[in-house]
This record gives sequence, C-alpha cells and structure tokens, in this order.
Amino acid sequence: MTFKVDLNCDMGESFGVYRMGNDEAILDYITSANIACGFHAGDPATMRKTVQLALEKNVGIGAHPGLQDLVGFGRRNISLSPQEAYDLVVYQIGALSGFVQAEGGKMQHVKAHGALYNMAAQNAGLSEAIAEAVYKIDPELILFGLSGSELVKAGKKIGLRTANEVFSDRTYQADGSLTPRTQPDALLTDTGTALEQVIRMVKEQKVMSTQQQEIQITADTICIHGDGATALDFAAAISSSLAGAGIDITKVEEFL
Amino acid sequence: MTFKVDLNCDMGESFGVYRMGNDEAILDYITSANIACGFHAGDPATMRKTVQLALEKNVGIGAHPGLQDLVGFGRRNISLSPQEAYDLVVYQIGALSGFVQAEGGKMQHVKAHGALYNMAAQNAGLSEAIAEAVYKIDPELILFGLSGSELVKAGKKIGLRTANEVFSDRTYQADGSLTPRTQPDALLTDTGTALEQVIRMVKEQKVMSTQQQEIQITADTICIHGDGATALDFAAAISSSLAGAGIDITKVEEFL
Amino acid sequence: MTFKVDLNCDMGESFGVYRMGNDEAILDYITSANIACGFHAGDPATMRKTVQLALEKNVGIGAHPGLQDLVGFGRRNISLSPQEAYDLVVYQIGALSGFVQAEGGKMQHVKAHGALYNMAAQNAGLSEAIAEAVYKIDPELILFGLSGSELVKAGKKIGLRTANEVFSDRTYQADGSLTPRTQPDALLTDTGTALEQVIRMVKEQKVMSTQQQEIQITADTICIHGDGATALDFAAAISSSLAGAGIDITKVEEFL
Amino acid sequence: MTFKVDLNCDMGESFGVYRMGNDEAILDYITSANIACGFHAGDPATMRKTVQLALEKNVGIGAHPGLQDLVGFGRRNISLSPQEAYDLVVYQIGALSGFVQAEGGKMQHVKAHGALYNMAAQNAGLSEAIAEAVYKIDPELILFGLSGSELVKAGKKIGLRTANEVFSDRTYQADGSLTPRTQPDALLTDTGTALEQVIRMVKEQKVMSTQQQEIQITADTICIHGDGATALDFAAAISSSLAGAGIDITKVEEFL
Repeated sequence: MTFKVDLNCDMGESFGVYRMGNDEAILDYITSANIACGFHAGDPATMRKTVQLALEKNVGIGAHPGLQDLVGFGRRNISLSPQEAYDLVVYQIGALSGFVQAEGGKMQHVKAHGALYNMAAQNAGLSEAIAEAVYKIDPELILFGLSGSELVKAGKKIGLRTANEVFSDRTYQADGSLTPRTQPDALLTDTGTALEQVIRMVKEQKVMSTQQQEIQITADTICIHGDGATALDFAAAISSSLAGAGIDITKVEEFL
Repeated sequence: MTFKVDLNCDMGESFGVYRMGNDEAILDYITSANIACGFHAGDPATMRKTVQLALEKNVGIGAHPGLQDLVGFGRRNISLSPQEAYDLVVYQIGALSGFVQAEGGKMQHVKAHGALYNMAAQNAGLSEAIAEAVYKIDPELILFGLSGSELVKAGKKIGLRTANEVFSDRTYQADGSLTPRTQPDALLTDTGTALEQVIRMVKEQKVMSTQQQEIQITADTICIHGDGATALDFAAAISSSLAGAGIDITKVEEFL
Repeated sequence: MTFKVDLNCDMGESFGVYRMGNDEAILDYITSANIACGFHAGDPATMRKTVQLALEKNVGIGAHPGLQDLVGFGRRNISLSPQEAYDLVVYQIGALSGFVQAEGGKMQHVKAHGALYNMAAQNAGLSEAIAEAVYKIDPELILFGLSGSELVKAGKKIGLRTANEVFSDRTYQADGSLTPRTQPDALLTDTGTALEQVIRMVKEQKVMSTQQQEIQITADTICIHGDGATALDFAAAISSSLAGAGIDITKVEEFL
Repeated sequence: MTFKVDLNCDMGESFGVYRMGNDEAILDYITSANIACGFHAGDPATMRKTVQLALEKNVGIGAHPGLQDLVGFGRRNISLSPQEAYDLVVYQIGALSGFVQAEGGKMQHVKAHGALYNMAAQNAGLSEAIAEAVYKIDPELILFGLSGSELVKAGKKIGLRTANEVFSDRTYQADGSLTPRTQPDALLTDTGTALEQVIRMVKEQKVMSTQQQEIQITADTICIHGDGATALDFAAAISSSLAGAGIDITKVEEFL
C-alpha cells in the first residue's frame, strides 16, 4: 500500500521593505504554498513574486486569506459576522487569483490564516461562510482545514474537496483539537518526536493526545513553518523522514 | 446613421460605515460601472453589494483600481514605478473579479482611478504597465482611458479593446488634455453647455478648446459623476438629451 | 441644591473625503467632545479642525481612542492584551494632544471608543491598562467610563478623576449594565421617555431596569449621539429639558 | 578648539511581527535617535520600547514623521499640500510624545523621514509647514534638516534651533545637494573615504563635490544607518574615528 501526503507551508509573508521567511529555499521541500493576500501579511509585489516562484517549482498555489490586522499579523481574534468572513475571503482569493491568472497558473487550494483559521475551526457559521466563498469562486478549489474541524465539515457539506491538515510540531487534545499555545506542552520541541508523530498520523491515522488517549486523525496535508532559524533544516528532515517511511510527498490535488 | 455611446460612473466608493454616492439610483441611467477595489475607496462588503446591483440592472462591471491612499481618496500623485502600478492593478482587478465570479457575472472593463488615471494619461511607462496587467488577467477586458491618452495607446498596442473616455463637465485644452482643475475655466457648470459639448463630441467627434480651437476627439464612453446633490438630476438630463439627439446609450462591450 | 451634569458627544469621525456627523452644530449643545484619533475614525486634518472648533466653542476636549479597525469603525471586538491596549491608548492620546498643544489648548478627558470601551467595562486588566496610559501621560486628565464599570474603578484606583457616564437612549439591566443592542428593548426610541430617564439618573441617581428593578446609578456625564437625522433635534431637546429640570449642563472638569 | 558633532540614526522601524534594524546595539554609539511614528514604519509597541531604550542609554529622542505609506516605507513622493504636511507632522510628533511623556522623558528633536525629508529640502512651502508644526507643539524642539536646505531655513525663520545634517555615506553635488541615488557615484562605499569626508565636514566645514569643487557645509549632526549587515561595524568605526580626530560626539541639544 502507498501512502501519500501533502506538505504545506505559509509563504509570501513579507511586506514592503520587511522580509519574512525563506520562501525560495522552503519551496524545494513542500508541495503546497499558502500565499498571504495582503490583509495579515503580503503585498502585491510579494504576491506576484511568490506566485512566480511556486509555479517555477511546480508547487500547488493556495490563497491564504487572513483578518485585516497587519500589525497583529492576523493572529488576534476579531469578532466578525459570517457575512464579513465571506466578503474578506472572496476579496483575498480574488486578489491572489489575479496574479495566478496573469502568470498563466491555476489556484489549487485555500487555507484560512491564523485567527480566522482557528475561529472557523470551532464555529460552523464562519466555516460555512468561508466554504461558500471558496465554492462560489471556483468549486474545483480544495479547502484546507484543521483535521476534523468545522471548516472541513463545511467544505464537504457544500461540495468542495477538503484537505485535513495536521501540524508537525503541535500536540493534540483528547477531542482532536490542538493543545492551546498557552499551555506548556503545546509544542513538540524534539524533532525526532515530531517526525514520529507525523508518520504515525499519516500511516496509522492515529495520534496520542496529551491525556495519553489514542485518537483517530486524518492527515491529508502537513503544515510546516517557513520562518525561524531551523525552518529549513526541519523541512529537509521531514522530507527525508517521510520518504524513508514510504510516504510519497504529493501535491494534494493529485490524490484527493 | 446610428450613434452609440457608453455612459460610465464611479461606483462602490463607500467604506465601512461611511456612505458615498447614490449608486442604486444612478445605475438606472448608466451602462458601465467603475467599481472601487479597496485601495482608494470601497471595501469587500461594498464591492459585493455593488457587483450584485450592477448585475441586477444589467450594467457593465468594471474594476476601478486606484492608488493605496484611502485618506487621500487616491487623488494624490504617488511616485510609483511601472512595476508597482502593474502589481496594484493586478491585485485590485483580481479582488473585484472574486466578487464578479462569485455572483456568476463577467467583468467588462477596467478604468484606473484618480491620480493613477491622470498620471498614466501622460506616462507611457505607467500606461504600458496598466495595460499589461489588464491583458495578462484577461485579454477580453476593455481598457478605459482619457480619449487619445497614453493609456489608450498602450491598450491598443498590447491588443486590448480600448474605450476613449470624455468628460461631460470638463473643458479641453488645444492638445486634447483636460483643463487642470486648478484653472478657473476647468469645469462646465451650465448643464445645457455640458450636454451640447457631449453630443457634439459623440456625433461630430469634435470639441472646442478653451483656446477656441476645434479639436478632434473620440467619445466611446462618457464619464458622469455619482456624487453630489445634482448627480442624479444630471444623469437623468444627459440620458434624455442623448436619446433626444439620436444617440443610443449602449454598454461599451456591445459596440467596440 | 444644584445639580450638574456634563453632556458629551463623539466628534471628529469624518475620514478623508468621507463626512460624518454635524459636529459644528452639535458643539453648541455639549460640554465635552470625544475626538476620534485616527484608528477607528478621524484623520489628522479632521482632528485639527475639530480641536479648533471645540476651542472656539469652549467645549472640553477629550481623546477618543479606539481599536485599529477603520473598516469596522472600532466596533468589533479584537482580542488584545492589556499591553496592546496601553500602547494604542498612549499613541492616540498623544496624537490628539499634538493638535491640542499646537492650538494652545488643554485636554480635559479621555473616553475609550466602541468595542474598546465595552470590552474594558467588564475587563479589569484592560481597564487598568487604559487607566495607566491616561495617568502616565497626564494625571490631571479625567477618565470617562460606563457608570460603575471596571474602567471607572481602575481610574479611581490609580488616582485619576473619573466621570461615570450614562446613555440617554439606552435601557439598563438589573446589574447596571446596558441592555445589549442585540435585544429588542435595548434602545429608548421615545424622546420623552429618554429625557425622563436621564433627568431621574441625574437628580435621583436611580434608573429602572428592564427587569423592573430600581438600580442605583451615578451620572456625571451623559452621552448623546451626533450622527443621524435627529441628532441635532435631540441635542436641543435634552439641553432644554435638563435646564428646565434645574440641572446645569457643565463641563465635567468644573465639578468633578 | 573643540569640535562637537551629534550622531543620529533612524530607530524603531520594526512593525508588528516584522523586525528591522539593531536598535539596542546601535544606541550605544549614537547621541540622537529618530523614532518612527507609525506612518512609514513603527507601531505603538515598537515606539514605547524604543523610547524606553533611548532613555536608558541617555540618547536624545526625536520624532521621525513620515508619509502615510507603510508598503513604500515612506520613500515614495506623495504630492501633498503644506496643510497636509503640517497635519501629519503634528499627529506623529504628538503620538511619539505620548510615549515620551508616559516614560517621563523629554523630546529633543524632529527629523522628517524619507520622501517627506527630501521633498521638504527643496520646497519652501512644505518646509514652512513642517517647521510650524514643530514650533507650535514645542518651540524648544530642534529641527533636523539636510545641511543648508529649505527645511533648515524654515526652522530658523520661525525661531527654532536647527541642526544641519550631513550624511556619512553619500556624495555631494556642487550646489550642496546629495547626489541622487539614481546616479552611480551617489554612495561612498569605502569606509575610509566616508570617514575622512565626515571628519573634514565637521572640522573644516568643507566637502568636495563630485564635480571636484570644494563647497561649504555645516555639520551639526551626522546620519548613520542602523540597518544592514555592516551598520554596527560602521557605527563603531565612525565613533572611534571622530574621537581620534578630536571631535566630541555630543547630543545636539547640548551644543546648539
């Protein structure tokens, strides 16, 4: 039996003179790029360049819409209505899609960013609004969401292909949610442990919660981080570990 | 012989709680709507509603990209490179296009806004960047530009259909440019005079300059204003005057 | 016995070409102006003009800092830390204070806006951060807050003069909080009822809750609205009603 | 005879999650810090921290107001009126001043940033507006400007102390202006040459233009750059070179 998994990373988060991440190098390891659309990060020039790089390296292009909070990098919850979520997602997918069309490419997926992603994971109304935005722009787009979350449910319900996302460096709760970053055991800091967990999620569809209960989990795509001193090393490590475990790292549109 | 002309107006310039214009009423008189895309005015919710209204009223939808200067309403020149102009035009066309696609419509045209429009009119480099942005997103789009300007030339050169735009309430210089607003005779304040000038531009392709020289001018589309106390009255007046003069007010995509 | 109360209104909420409110006319009725500082509304030009108007009309000048959410007019909750609240309040008080100093005036008070005001009313940590920001800039400033709220408590605790604010057109809950706008009976739509409630709050320090329980309330300052068709009429009506009831409308710094 | 000169550097240019510069280390070498105020760079949290650092290290604090163009880092000319320049300078000085007051410090100077600095250097109207903004907020503030520029003239005219600024790494034209960055010989890339030029400007008040004409120049303060790989090395080098040449590096307020 062959296992397949997609490897995704947030990209295009530079803004104006400010640089973030190491996009060009990371793109060699991933199969899907979530490109910031100018609300939480990114700007038109960065979007164009990131789309060009992703096309050159044959990486799946995704819109990464976020809350309109540049100074907070889209990480702070903003109480917004489903209609507001719909509108800002349509706007941002559209904006990125301008660059994708101009470069002759095709958008593969949409992944909400930061606080929007987290709020939607637990809020059916927001999730349905986001799923509707994606569907109405293009029903062929794949919607990414936290594995088992409301976002994935809303995507399926409206008729989108959905990708269940797992995190390589986070621990899980007994209910399948991520351990909040405010808790001391939220992060897996040991690379070996992180890689073991990821491989098990892909091959056995299981993960051990911090409460020591084994839970079911679907892993269509794994999120890795592009920022920070060790991002590139980790990208290389996870890439070779997955290969070594007989898992094909494959663009999500090719197996969903 | 039948004369045809398009009537266009800037739309969707509200922002958040701030209201501007009387879009719904003006849409009954015009054939093309230039919809603000969030940089100089407009926001995602306003864009969605304006697209919906334009579709209901069968008015041609255009993107109206502007400079990123909300507090200055995109009216202040910003020294930007052709590459920067290209990027912000792609971004904004894309963003509006998200709403157009989501509503099942099709974009008809692109008209640059304010200072971007004026700078491009006289700058071949900026005009070529804007025309390229439009062309690469969709070569079927029609590019609006000041009649006879660099923007129209750049559009033709790259292979776009172009619409030469005239202004109903502005006077012209001997070189075909608009009299700058800083000069006392820049505006036609008398409605009768304005309507006569417009009809002559359409039927005879001529306009009298403030220097009393008759100049050649092409009028594919006429810009009217949607803001101000008399905007609606003027829209009604120009609409009936053109009809009375045997000129069909027709969406630009139907005769270009 | 003489009763005194301050009458305050939000001012300077125009932005760029967008007009809001009828500041000049409303200023004839009020004693304290809460001037937007550019985050939820307002811009440098509007701030200057509003400060000049308030000084001409001898109205107390207050900073009205809000969340950085122009498109949402500062009305949407943003999850921010006390440190973030402190920083944005210092920034905005400072900015307005630039105009006040340049015009030779003196700032009287600070009133948080919209969602920041509402979040702080129930959150001691945010309230302490806001009170600290005000105190560290100038301990002579008066802090406005919902009557009996955490903001008023935090202001007193740090050593500021505080003004308990009541609302002329809102109903109250048995615990002294405002009835949320999501409930049908949140607003008093009848002017007569609104004026009676306000006069009773000032003279008897009591208000009837929607649960028909009489509650104690302190009314140092009354908030009226400057926007909407009837704002000016209501300002005139409340002004003459208070006078008729023997209540002096007095700048808050003169009696606190 | 003792020579004195001030050493200034742009500071506080980080924004949200984006880091720029090496402020803490550079502050050990300079005597005046120009702190970004949130329009071209900087945010409230960064402003607070930078003010605290400058106070700890006893470095003179200056407001560094720029054009409202975060994505362009305030480096692109925006055509603005003197009134608009006045308003945005008052706003930004005020905002920084909030943090300075809250920390118990005192602002020393104001230096316009980027395109605003360059436009004002050659435009008397803009310069007078900026000088008026500074003067009306606090006539004790020192106004920085390109040595011999309109800004320095406008500052003197209104009664401000002014600091003539020279650049350590730029070449000069025969008319005393900086060689535009678009020209190949705009920058001094050799550290030794740069240091020699600076020392000569301070001790002999002369500089050799690229046209090989010796011109008079006043050097009250020297601008060094805080960004880039070699910024810290250069700061150390200029500091020891000036000392070695018998020039005291002294806060500008102590000798002007």
